[in-house]
Amino acid sequence: MLIVGERINTSRKAIEPAVRERNTEFIQKVAKEQVAAGATFIDVNAGTLVDDEPEALKWLVQTVQSAIDVPLCIDSPNPIAIGAALKVHKGKAIINSITGEKERFQSIAPLVKEYGASVVALCMDDRGMPENIEERFNIAENIVEQLAQMGIPQRDIYIDPLVRPISTGSDNGLVAIETIRRVMQGFDGVHTICGLSNVSFGLPERKLLNQAFLIMCMTAGLDAVILDPLDNHLMALVAASRALLNKDEFCMDYIAAYKAGRLE
Amino acid sequence: MLIVGERINTSRKAIEPAVRERNTEFIQKVAKEQVAAGATFIDVNAGTLVDDEPEALKWLVQTVQSAIDVPLCIDSPNPIAIGAALKVHKGKAIINSITGEKERFQSIAPLVKEYGASVVALCMDDRGMPENIEERFNIAENIVEQLAQMGIPQRDIYIDPLVRPISTGSDNGLVAIETIRRVMQGFDGVHTICGLSNVSFGLPERKLLNQAFLIMCMTAGLDAVILDPLDNHLMALVAASRALLNKDEFCMDYIAAYKAGRLE
Repeated sequence: MLIVGERINTSRKAIEPAVRERNTEFIQKVAKEQVAAGATFIDVNAGTLVDDEPEALKWLVQTVQSAIDVPLCIDSPNPIAIGAALKVHKGKAIINSITGEKERFQSIAPLVKEYGASVVALCMDDRGMPENIEERFNIAENIVEQLAQMGIPQRDIYIDPLVRPISTGSDNGLVAIETIRRVMQGFDGVHTICGLSNVSFGLPERKLLNQAFLIMCMTAGLDAVILDPLDNHLMALVAASRALLNKDEFCMDYIAAYKAGRLE
Repeated sequence: MLIVGERINTSRKAIEPAVRERNTEFIQKVAKEQVAAGATFIDVNAGTLVDDEPEALKWLVQTVQSAIDVPLCIDSPNPIAIGAALKVHKGKAIINSITGEKERFQSIAPLVKEYGASVVALCMDDRGMPENIEERFNIAENIVEQLAQMGIPQRDIYIDPLVRPISTGSDNGLVAIETIRRVMQGFDGVHTICGLSNVSFGLPERKLLNQAFLIMCMTAGLDAVILDPLDNHLMALVAASRALLNKDEFCMDYIAAYKAGRLE
């Protein structure tokens, strides 16, 4: 299970001023905490800074990678910002994200190729947000095909089913879960990824819904997730789910997590 | 979701002496608490009392049903005890359980028919415990067919996939989950049911595994479960899972549970 730590995002109150002020110590602390808690990738997002985004993202990559030893998830829809970040990134980054939208695809996909990066692809295109599983799968298929034509291997692609809140449509959870299942069965080597918080938007006790949704997505085959690794209970559920889904032989990781006090 | 409250079982320390002494007040309290917490059926099991089982089970049915208004799950492999209990049971009981074992089937299935009961059927037969999903499905198919020949409708059958611990086989969780999916897709109207605690046997932090396993089984289609309804977090996860799986239109039950303070 690939765990992308989501905390370094300027939409978070504590992060925006730290990035604006180029507070190296603070950002490195947030990065280290997430890696210590089990993150295998660190997301960096400076989207709220608008004009400063390319410079901020570049600074984030350098700042984070001089503190910790994991690759980053470059989180932006802006090809200029992504390009600036990739130029200084060490190792194999994930670009988050492309879509099937023509302009976005054509401006970002060449960067995936140029830097040998992986890429998150959202199931939407110029027709907007798809309504059902079939439409999502078709968009995914189309994106995988276009990337293949550029020589980008399926194992470098992470399909995001585009999760919408169950408060605005009772089948939105199930549509995401079944899209994940379809994608994992339909392509060889392609990964699936999603965030957890959209699904619970507008409802009380969101953590509870997010927890259950994570387990459901993992049951459907999800092999990467964007979350807050400092949420101990969520991370404990990941360990439990891996053991239950036969992704942790002899439950060795689960027992190790228990011994390290991580399941409490 | 059918919730079978599991607390009235003489294998539990507090219950055995209460049944032995025919402590009406105590047993009725345990029944009422479970119904108040959301149980839609109450399991009664006097298996540890051996020679007294038929009398004890009969007493339990009468005692519980004079306190609460839900049907019971008559939990015994003993046809004499089941018969004694059914004779005094009001409404449509669930018999827990038959198997594909010839002797057990032939002694209990006629009681299902005679009393118009529902029945839990465990996926095992005279060849012992099945190894894989296919073998489990074949046993289920065989049981459903035999019951059909007796005129017992599919909607009265609850298939239990026979959950074995992941500590003794890393794929045991997944086998149970996929058996549930196969049965729900393979038969029209047949239900699936299981208990949660076997899966975590021999491992630390069992509650965590049981919680994740419940959500996984529900994702695969499980529509009945045997659990402790006084476990608030487990019941909250059932509410969250129903909402996420589009079994709770407009999340109305979820929001009602929140307003009643049941999601904390």
